[in-house]
Amino acid sequence: MKVLVAGGAGFIGSNLVEALLAEGHSVVCVDNFFIGTERNIAHLKNHPHFTLHEQDLCDLEAVQGIFERERFDFVFQMAANSDIQASAKAPEVEYRNTYTTTFNILEAMRMSDVKNLFFCSTSAVYGDAQGEKMDENYAPLMPISYYGACKLGCEALISAFSYMNGFHSLVFRFPNVIGPRLTHGVIFDFLKRLQENPKVLTILGDGRQCKPYLYVADLVSCILQFTKNLPEGVTLYNVGAETQSVVSGIAEIVCQEMGLQDVEFRYTGGRGGWKGDVPVFAYDLSKIHAAGWKAAMTSDEAVIQTVRDVLSCRQ
Amino acid sequence: MKVLVAGGAGFIGSNLVEALLAEGHSVVCVDNFFIGTERNIAHLKNHPHFTLHEQDLCDLEAVQGIFERERFDFVFQMAANSDIQASAKAPEVEYRNTYTTTFNILEAMRMSDVKNLFFCSTSAVYGDAQGEKMDENYAPLMPISYYGACKLGCEALISAFSYMNGFHSLVFRFPNVIGPRLTHGVIFDFLKRLQENPKVLTILGDGRQCKPYLYVADLVSCILQFTKNLPEGVTLYNVGAETQSVVSGIAEIVCQEMGLQDVEFRYTGGRGGWKGDVPVFAYDLSKIHAAGWKAAMTSDEAVIQTVRDVLSCRQ
Repeated sequence: MKVLVAGGAGFIGSNLVEALLAEGHSVVCVDNFFIGTERNIAHLKNHPHFTLHEQDLCDLEAVQGIFERERFDFVFQMAANSDIQASAKAPEVEYRNTYTTTFNILEAMRMSDVKNLFFCSTSAVYGDAQGEKMDENYAPLMPISYYGACKLGCEALISAFSYMNGFHSLVFRFPNVIGPRLTHGVIFDFLKRLQENPKVLTILGDGRQCKPYLYVADLVSCILQFTKNLPEGVTLYNVGAETQSVVSGIAEIVCQEMGLQDVEFRYTGGRGGWKGDVPVFAYDLSKIHAAGWKAAMTSDEAVIQTVRDVLSCRQ
Repeated sequence: MKVLVAGGAGFIGSNLVEALLAEGHSVVCVDNFFIGTERNIAHLKNHPHFTLHEQDLCDLEAVQGIFERERFDFVFQMAANSDIQASAKAPEVEYRNTYTTTFNILEAMRMSDVKNLFFCSTSAVYGDAQGEKMDENYAPLMPISYYGACKLGCEALISAFSYMNGFHSLVFRFPNVIGPRLTHGVIFDFLKRLQENPKVLTILGDGRQCKPYLYVADLVSCILQFTKNLPEGVTLYNVGAETQSVVSGIAEIVCQEMGLQDVEFRYTGGRGGWKGDVPVFAYDLSKIHAAGWKAAMTSDEAVIQTVRDVLSCRQ
């Protein structure tokens, strides 16, 4: 199969590219290196089935040009601004890098008659459900971040484009995804802060924020499993681990893996880490479990493995 | 109050501008005359509290400039591509005129610290619920038109912007709205076709499409009632008539009002009039009824009055 991985130089994108190449597919990666980096895919550059285009997907004409030349069988839309905290002060980043990139890909698919799509959505579309377990039909969807808002807008576009053009679309709502090549988030921040000052760790909020963390290899194997034989229309799943990790517990794990003792934790206080953050959430995963998939790692196991991945890369 | 009516030269927009002026407000109308027309507001041009800017709201810098100069108390975002049938072949029209205009208005509100918003959403966000009665928490929302998809995307943006910036936002999901200055839709089409050929009327679909039609004066009075004392956050209502009108019945009304007899109806067949059309829908209106509003006209009364409005304008 010839596939496009949009945002393929990003954290999840580059892990997916590796897995697709390992399965024997020809992979075209398009990335603007806004969050993704050349380093993430440097080891793939000489692979005979790997092609890289440095291109901003906000340019519809350029995207259409790539689609006309490459004739894709399947499109994985992984391009987005994934740093919610950063876009809280600049919503236009989400308008461009999350929404417009998706619109342009859907429009290019429509014009070039490409029918198969995978889209990475997010738990952020649900907004702050105050810890209530959310299944895929949870309502109302009231995102509190610009990132969640633009991802929900993308899901809506996929619904209409799929109906109007007979697309086969798979949409996964991810929780926090972690693992090698992580670019931001609580684990990344803790490691960085402790490397700068191993005696004191500042923790945003009250440390009781509690969410499921999913290891990226678990997610990638799930994507590969469910993109085979997609039915027409939109298929939507919550994807995650059944367990959750508490922020203060993540701090403990990071200290332990770094071999640090007696680190003073300083909490900034308040329920959420920052405005737009959903401090507590839990998925109802019945639908994807019934379809034959479960995360291999618990949330805490994913945290521990990720800390080890990042530390071993830095040595 | 100084208010912006974005899209104020359009069908619903111009009816709203009249009502706001009649209540004593200062009204600034911004329109790009893509669907709206100068004719719709010609009678208001010399009103001492009316200002018109011809401006495409897709230009964020220009929108911000207007916000900085005018210092609005309240924003009514009525600008959109309202012709769903037309955008079915050109989704980019919705991306620009429905989604981007709304993003730019929200961004300008954020930058200029304007807190009060009215937004006209649509029944099209629900998708095709196969006639099931939809309340505001109906899920999943699976729009089948690009218009419905972009409006749902706008609702998501409003949710995030309201949370992040303390906006007071009112969102109405409209059904088909009809009345003086109508620009398209089934009544408009039937009148035009019968004026060209009073013997035969082509009807798209099987004629059994059945939807609630709301008279524009009813809607405008509802908007004025609910924009007073808005609470912080997003307040969302379905707005409509409890009754519905059937397309073949609308054809009968139009013939009768035009004084035509023995018109041959030719049905093109199929459930929906065109791809992306939701042929049958019904609202659950409990929420807005409980809040103290009901439509004054039934759906059929609205159809009859609209046919008379349009015919009397054309004489």
